[in-house]
Amino acid sequence: MPDSALLPHILDLAEMGPARLPQDARKMAELSLFDWMVVSLAGADQPLARIIRDFVAAEGGVAKAAVTGSKLRVPARAAALANGTISHALDYDDTHFAYIGHPSVAIFPAALAAAEEMGASGGDVVDAFLLGAEATCRIGMVLGRDHYDAGFHQTATSGAFGATIAAARLYQLDRDALSAALGLVSTRASGLKSQFGTMGKPFNAGAAAANGIEAASLAKRGFTASTDAFAGAQSFLAAHHADNAGSGKIADWSFDKFFFASVSHKLHACCHGTHAMIEALLLLQAGGKIAADDVDEVRVNITPRWQNVCDIKTPQTGLEIKFSYVFLAAMVLQNINLAAYESYHDAACKDTYLMALAERVKVVGDDSIADSAARVEVRLKDGKTSSQSFDLLSPIDPAVLGQRLLAKGAALIGTAAAHDLWAMTNNLGGVSASDLASKLQR
Amino acid sequence: MPDSALLPHILDLAEMGPARLPQDARKMAELSLFDWMVVSLAGADQPLARIIRDFVAAEGGVAKAAVTGSKLRVPARAAALANGTISHALDYDDTHFAYIGHPSVAIFPAALAAAEEMGASGGDVVDAFLLGAEATCRIGMVLGRDHYDAGFHQTATSGAFGATIAAARLYQLDRDALSAALGLVSTRASGLKSQFGTMGKPFNAGAAAANGIEAASLAKRGFTASTDAFAGAQSFLAAHHADNAGSGKIADWSFDKFFFASVSHKLHACCHGTHAMIEALLLLQAGGKIAADDVDEVRVNITPRWQNVCDIKTPQTGLEIKFSYVFLAAMVLQNINLAAYESYHDAACKDTYLMALAERVKVVGDDSIADSAARVEVRLKDGKTSSQSFDLLSPIDPAVLGQRLLAKGAALIGTAAAHDLWAMTNNLGGVSASDLASKLQR
Repeated sequence: MPDSALLPHILDLAEMGPARLPQDARKMAELSLFDWMVVSLAGADQPLARIIRDFVAAEGGVAKAAVTGSKLRVPARAAALANGTISHALDYDDTHFAYIGHPSVAIFPAALAAAEEMGASGGDVVDAFLLGAEATCRIGMVLGRDHYDAGFHQTATSGAFGATIAAARLYQLDRDALSAALGLVSTRASGLKSQFGTMGKPFNAGAAAANGIEAASLAKRGFTASTDAFAGAQSFLAAHHADNAGSGKIADWSFDKFFFASVSHKLHACCHGTHAMIEALLLLQAGGKIAADDVDEVRVNITPRWQNVCDIKTPQTGLEIKFSYVFLAAMVLQNINLAAYESYHDAACKDTYLMALAERVKVVGDDSIADSAARVEVRLKDGKTSSQSFDLLSPIDPAVLGQRLLAKGAALIGTAAAHDLWAMTNNLGGVSASDLASKLQR
Repeated sequence: MPDSALLPHILDLAEMGPARLPQDARKMAELSLFDWMVVSLAGADQPLARIIRDFVAAEGGVAKAAVTGSKLRVPARAAALANGTISHALDYDDTHFAYIGHPSVAIFPAALAAAEEMGASGGDVVDAFLLGAEATCRIGMVLGRDHYDAGFHQTATSGAFGATIAAARLYQLDRDALSAALGLVSTRASGLKSQFGTMGKPFNAGAAAANGIEAASLAKRGFTASTDAFAGAQSFLAAHHADNAGSGKIADWSFDKFFFASVSHKLHACCHGTHAMIEALLLLQAGGKIAADDVDEVRVNITPRWQNVCDIKTPQTGLEIKFSYVFLAAMVLQNINLAAYESYHDAACKDTYLMALAERVKVVGDDSIADSAARVEVRLKDGKTSSQSFDLLSPIDPAVLGQRLLAKGAALIGTAAAHDLWAMTNNLGGVSASDLASKLQR
């Protein structure tokens, strides 16, 4: 697809009616809504959450949309800024590997705030989110690896376009106004990877969400912008190092299949690079093949790329545990719930049993293994061996995924609250956006 | 200067006390304040001004800062967004050629709104503006031509850093907090040249100003960000195509001389590419060397580069007149005030006397002439000839410039209002930021 065809394609996507949305992607969007609300609530007491709430509270304004973790209600743009930032505080939200970004934290805050402002339904929130998320996937894939390597954070850059589409749908913009909104957000979308490890990373998500509300609101009022600003010469794509092969790389530009459907949900509160190992170990455990006391050696085969990221041999803090293959493997063997934030505490580093187990784990770099995969080989003291591979990109049954997300929710916000949210997000008929938003408040 | 030294340099600059500010630059900042207020008021009824006011009015919020052209008072961030956008509506504000950006429209809105919020003085506004503007010049020069050619609009990108410094000074941030604010705005600064010719261009200025307030406000509350985000690997500079020779190019990194002092003020409401010709013709006229009725031929020598920009031979609308050397030359010869917006009306295109005069003007491309210059040669019907060159970068006596800006102000907002503003901005002792801001309201 030439760059000039990208804007019409995205406009066509944004105008799809609810009946045409692929059902697998729609179901995944509901699961993402549940998961996003869980991680939002779980992150609501982080220091950055308090600061961003203070900021929007001090500005005040019309009470249109709820702010997570408070009784505050503020203008939609401010709510999107705060809620996006808060929901990414734990970095425990969903990830889309095809464009290397977090769709929910940039798009749900915009969709929910705009829906509250318009009095829309919970189903409308999910539809608007899904179209925004799918646009974000496609735009992010066009931006591609060059964009990421140059230093941009796709959650924020691609995400701002998705947030705009979601907000524009809820504000009922026609095609011309949506086109202006996308032109306007082209000049506003920003965000750097160099923020990783600071409050600036979650802020990127909030800024993307707020950009979406701002662009859609202004376009609704008749503000114009260059539609050339999105693709073409000196456009957002060109200026922001879009991969030259970006649009050519995408095999299927139809609307029958949504790329969003392959979104990944974090099920463990640690570095994503360790998740394939954890899943493989959990499968071995569930199969009754290993008990911690019987283990002689565990070999974890992963791509060498991750060895610079999450291979701390003797973690000293709870945060370091999140980046330690050997310690995380020991914790799985010990049946510690890695979905729960509390599991990652400094004292665990001094647990002599875990330390001894961790010493039996060997990490092996293997170029033949994908970023998203791991192979685990276990030898027991009796000489028996077993092995298991896992790839995070393997399709997962939505029902199984749902149960695991529910368990994660219970670990993060308590069983009762998780089940309450679960019931609501799995039965959106008759639920308003305000009903949903009220669950984020306290 | 290596990139790693840039952030400390900018922090040192931002911490300069008022007594150390170079007086020529300080005087120029006062003139820019007057000029910025004039063009703000003159642009306050443009359609985009009404839309951006509607937007911030609908959000509401605490009444901290004035919105141009209304009785509205809103949070500082919203006022900065609206006022920056409104003040660039006419594209009649000051330009800094060394970094190719408009300093006042991005930085004054942030400085004024933050000063109102803090109850600061008019003098504080000018000091904060000047330090922000000087930082913007230096950062913009480091970004350089590569950044501009890639499609970025320095008014918005460099401008956001200056707006942050101005706001941070008024919010009384310490060095660590300022450092965080600059890290945060690194992830927010954005803006594309492809918006030129749409409401998106003025919006870029407003967004830069709002980014400054946002970053400084959050940093004041303890929000952190990566300070590596400004310079270094995968920083703002690297990701946004900073000229590799950028910092090396700057001969004088001392604080004794401010680059801002060479800012240019637009004295005519037409394309900047025509201004050197207009000045040269005005000099010839003032010298008594030409009267319209006596002219046989006018030859306008300019760089060929401008011939693609502002050489419309037979303009059909007032807007096209702004890009027509031949018609503008005829209007100067006819003593029409080119500072006044009303002079550029569609009916003027049908004025047979002007049309006949315009036919006598020849535009000649000459590679030896700088972008900022023109040479005009006039032959009268009696055979007498005279010529005059002009370069917009030639130093201009501040007193002369002041009188011309006052005349421009009178043409745009009326004599009484211009003199009232003139008196206030030339005597800032005892004037509060709120006094200044109230002059933008009506």
